[in-house]
Amino acid sequence: MPDTAIPHPAFEDFVPGEITTYGRYEVTKEEIIAFATEFDPQPFHLDEEAGRASWLGGLAASGWHTSAILMRLNCDGFMVGSTSMGSSGLEEVQWLKPVHPGDVLTVRREILETRSSASRPEMGIVRCRFELVNQKGEAVLVQTNPIFFGRRSAEVA
Amino acid sequence: MPDTAIPHPAFEDFVPGEITTYGRYEVTKEEIIAFATEFDPQPFHLDEEAGRASWLGGLAASGWHTSAILMRLNCDGFMVGSTSMGSSGLEEVQWLKPVHPGDVLTVRREILETRSSASRPEMGIVRCRFELVNQKGEAVLVQTNPIFFGRRSAEVA
Repeated sequence: MPDTAIPHPAFEDFVPGEITTYGRYEVTKEEIIAFATEFDPQPFHLDEEAGRASWLGGLAASGWHTSAILMRLNCDGFMVGSTSMGSSGLEEVQWLKPVHPGDVLTVRREILETRSSASRPEMGIVRCRFELVNQKGEAVLVQTNPIFFGRRSAEVA
Repeated sequence: MPDTAIPHPAFEDFVPGEITTYGRYEVTKEEIIAFATEFDPQPFHLDEEAGRASWLGGLAASGWHTSAILMRLNCDGFMVGSTSMGSSGLEEVQWLKPVHPGDVLTVRREILETRSSASRPEMGIVRCRFELVNQKGEAVLVQTNPIFFGRRSAEVA
């Protein structure tokens, strides 16, 4: 079980069942508030006191912020420089635990399935399950989604 | 069919089957690049040329950026000042069309279901389906997710 993702992968490099871990992201109070101010200005994402009064138990990142952090870790971990062609969406996202200032997040990626595209032979679809895990080993976010990757053969052609 | 959301709603204000539209957000090139630089630095989200060379057909917003814009429109449209207690996740997101600079986005919200919480009588769960629609009337994003709202009775109590 490798503990880093293969850099610059193409469709052919993804192996169903493979589990990889990578990335490290320390979340700050300033960026929690900055993201929430721009995109999710609910009190518990903006203010310590309001966070404590909510079931989140303290100032907590917007789920969209946590999801964007996962995307950044995926970009740095394996997507930038890969043959990624983006994604059509998400099958499921669960925001399982609040993310607080000082939390340190890591990604655990499982390849669920790889399949050819009937209509677009130059690419294939890689279904991934991502967990974002905090410093206590708790999954704070689980996400399943398909990502389109170009084939190595197409890249060379 | 109302064309704006009720401001400051509590759980009791959501009616299954109700469809509402609200919000207006014009997307700029600068913010597409700024968001992508921070969270999703894939070439087609950063660079006009790379966008044109991709199936996106031009510089296009990260799906996460589009999702965050929907969240902002929802906050402004009905969530800020409501009894919202956040969400546990997403059942489905489809990024259907690329979002380019100059696109103007509006929300169409459908209330799919409202249900009580057995374990937490002070709140209820509102399942919503959101469409983010561009100036051509095309849905660029579809999302289904449950949101927790406090009951008015609990608020008064």
